[in-house]
Amino acid sequence: MTQLNETHDPALSSWLASANDANIGFPVQHLPFAVFRRAASQEKFRPGVALGDQIIDLAQLALRQPFSGLAAEALNTCTGPTLNALMALGNRHWSALRLALSQATRAGSVLQAVIEPLLVPQAQAEYSLPAQIRDYTDFYISIYHATAGGKISRPDAPLLPNFKWLPIGYHGRASSVVISGHEVVRPVGQARPASAGQPPSFGPSQRLDFELEMAMFVGPGNAQGKRITIDEADEHIFGVCLLNDWSARDIQAWEVQPLGPFLAKSFATTISPWIVTREALEPFRLPFNRPATDPQPLPYLMNESVKKGGVYDIGLKALISTEQSRAARHEPALLAHSNLCHAYWTLSQLITHHTVNGCNLQPGDLIGTGTMSGPNPDQALSFNELSVGATQAVKLPWGQERKFLEDGDEITLQAECTKPGYPRLSFGQATGKIRPAVG
Amino acid sequence: MTQLNETHDPALSSWLASANDANIGFPVQHLPFAVFRRAASQEKFRPGVALGDQIIDLAQLALRQPFSGLAAEALNTCTGPTLNALMALGNRHWSALRLALSQATRAGSVLQAVIEPLLVPQAQAEYSLPAQIRDYTDFYISIYHATAGGKISRPDAPLLPNFKWLPIGYHGRASSVVISGHEVVRPVGQARPASAGQPPSFGPSQRLDFELEMAMFVGPGNAQGKRITIDEADEHIFGVCLLNDWSARDIQAWEVQPLGPFLAKSFATTISPWIVTREALEPFRLPFNRPATDPQPLPYLMNESVKKGGVYDIGLKALISTEQSRAARHEPALLAHSNLCHAYWTLSQLITHHTVNGCNLQPGDLIGTGTMSGPNPDQALSFNELSVGATQAVKLPWGQERKFLEDGDEITLQAECTKPGYPRLSFGQATGKIRPAVG
Repeated sequence: MTQLNETHDPALSSWLASANDANIGFPVQHLPFAVFRRAASQEKFRPGVALGDQIIDLAQLALRQPFSGLAAEALNTCTGPTLNALMALGNRHWSALRLALSQATRAGSVLQAVIEPLLVPQAQAEYSLPAQIRDYTDFYISIYHATAGGKISRPDAPLLPNFKWLPIGYHGRASSVVISGHEVVRPVGQARPASAGQPPSFGPSQRLDFELEMAMFVGPGNAQGKRITIDEADEHIFGVCLLNDWSARDIQAWEVQPLGPFLAKSFATTISPWIVTREALEPFRLPFNRPATDPQPLPYLMNESVKKGGVYDIGLKALISTEQSRAARHEPALLAHSNLCHAYWTLSQLITHHTVNGCNLQPGDLIGTGTMSGPNPDQALSFNELSVGATQAVKLPWGQERKFLEDGDEITLQAECTKPGYPRLSFGQATGKIRPAVG
Repeated sequence: MTQLNETHDPALSSWLASANDANIGFPVQHLPFAVFRRAASQEKFRPGVALGDQIIDLAQLALRQPFSGLAAEALNTCTGPTLNALMALGNRHWSALRLALSQATRAGSVLQAVIEPLLVPQAQAEYSLPAQIRDYTDFYISIYHATAGGKISRPDAPLLPNFKWLPIGYHGRASSVVISGHEVVRPVGQARPASAGQPPSFGPSQRLDFELEMAMFVGPGNAQGKRITIDEADEHIFGVCLLNDWSARDIQAWEVQPLGPFLAKSFATTISPWIVTREALEPFRLPFNRPATDPQPLPYLMNESVKKGGVYDIGLKALISTEQSRAARHEPALLAHSNLCHAYWTLSQLITHHTVNGCNLQPGDLIGTGTMSGPNPDQALSFNELSVGATQAVKLPWGQERKFLEDGDEITLQAECTKPGYPRLSFGQATGKIRPAVG
């Protein structure tokens, strides 16, 4: 666990006024990374760091060589169309670059004159995937989501016996991960027959759903055959973003046995553009919260650091708008809210478990948490849970109701870190609108 | 379905004597691709084509510009460390390059003088992965394997109701795919408790297994949201190789519900270096063989071409050696043999099903068939099947027996196409030796 350092000092403010505005949520304590360009331009995508309502163009900053040592080495990797090279460098470099950027953006910094001309307004930007994602893994670490989903398919034993012993995960499809704003075409496929022994139906999914998750980008990773221990795991977490694991429940119900979800999820996965570094999240650690009546983690998944502060306090929200609500200029409606602190396993435990068999992680790998539902009914982060397996319609404030997503619906995921006496950190958002199936 | 053409003329012979030797299995009708260099050299890995006991260095050949038109365009992509760029070009380019190479390597070709100096003996070569694999998918298309595995876990209903309606698949781990010869470290992990309610065990896998599969490399692929129809599917199959889906059965049994295999398979997957092009396989098509009593494929998975020749006749073998057998200089022992013709679904059906939901395939994606076991007991291509779920030891000819793999065991997978009146095509082999677990 990284100690707090001068970059976490809540008293710091920036020479950029909008960075000091809590409504905007990108203070000098934050400094998340994305890959961006001016929207609808022919510019190359390049790395940037958020500050207030602006983006610092790191490719331009690198040309001006404002830093030295590890920070300069780290900044020099920020010139291409992805952050993979920065992710590969590791925690010492990431931390040095964060410190240099923190010092350069504080009120009074002599580097204000260098950086100010390199700012691009977020309002004028578009984003690409922040890394070339070689492998995408999705876990399933909310016990509330696992129990709610299990109740629908296995009322007698909703939680499987392995859940409390290991973080359950599966390999996802990397090619179809898209950045926020990309429209999602309703998938077509086979769906479970209405009754056993009948042929499956075939056509556009009738049970298209969202899932609010968080995800981490990995670096530097490990050689094949060599595991990452729990003591080392944090240093392989570059940062965190939002993830919408779009899911076609009817396709999933038919194909899932015996090898797990496949086409039900591989048509699209949306992530938010800003990667919030692990170091920025350090002030929001909470103690690992495992009930004493539950099995304690096996030794390879546990250490003092996890115990003291394994879980992050990150508030999560899912909102919806529909064609009708947008036409009537209603604000998007809150569907549910939750918090990453409900995770049964820590992010570091996911890293260690993933590599315990010798599986090699690589810089730019994306690892999802699974749907981060909380204990209460309004903390259910998918329609499948909100509608209790399509038995209860969810009422929207403008009079419509939903059991699953309809064409034209748009889901927006948001996250933020807040606590008294510390500037608010926004994660930005991950949006996606449903387009009709292709015939 | 590609028609046969002059490259398939069985009467063709080469100016290279070893290409005309059926024992070697790399005739002028074959021309598979790999990425190679001289073993233990500092040379760069580059593409090559097998001819007899030699490899044609395509990077060197490209410098000499022996071809024109599409063949030249295709050859010009063969200069880097992977075949992704060639895979991206598509079937017209692949076919033009094959024809040009066929003409250049036939007896009497004026290009003999250009090519002969560029030959590297296969005996002196080492190989790397032939492509950067962005996504690896594994299917499960032998009904005999599915039934045998199902009998062990579900004696009453071994075959799940979805098996005959769709090709079941899952996302695999791309980062841990390795080339033949790479040693495999025995994985460590949690294994299913001896009895329900007990804690899981933790340590090196006690049920380490192999699985003999075939796999295809994909190109050019499809845009996200746009499916590849069954009529188009063949043109997205660049070629085929062998694949060993190493599996830890005890880890798998504990982690597999509800999301499928994960760490049980992600520690290593071995492929053979030679990619046999789809066009080279055309003489070995067999009619699609679906019993009339079984459901016929849904329309999106069927056309006349699949019906007439959807399945390939490719003979498969799995062999084993142990530390003891090698010390005593015994030949590797045949464990089982089978044939790709036992596939319940065709390779083209896998491509079409994979994309029916809009999932985008990319050049260099790897798609496995699943364990290609046949109907008879000696056609079981994993220890789990050969030992009937570890209830019967498999006797090896030198007196040892096995239920699963022990440290030092080496598995060799082989494949070949043979038929009367046509030169034999060898697939080379995929080998892997088990190293002890890392403590």
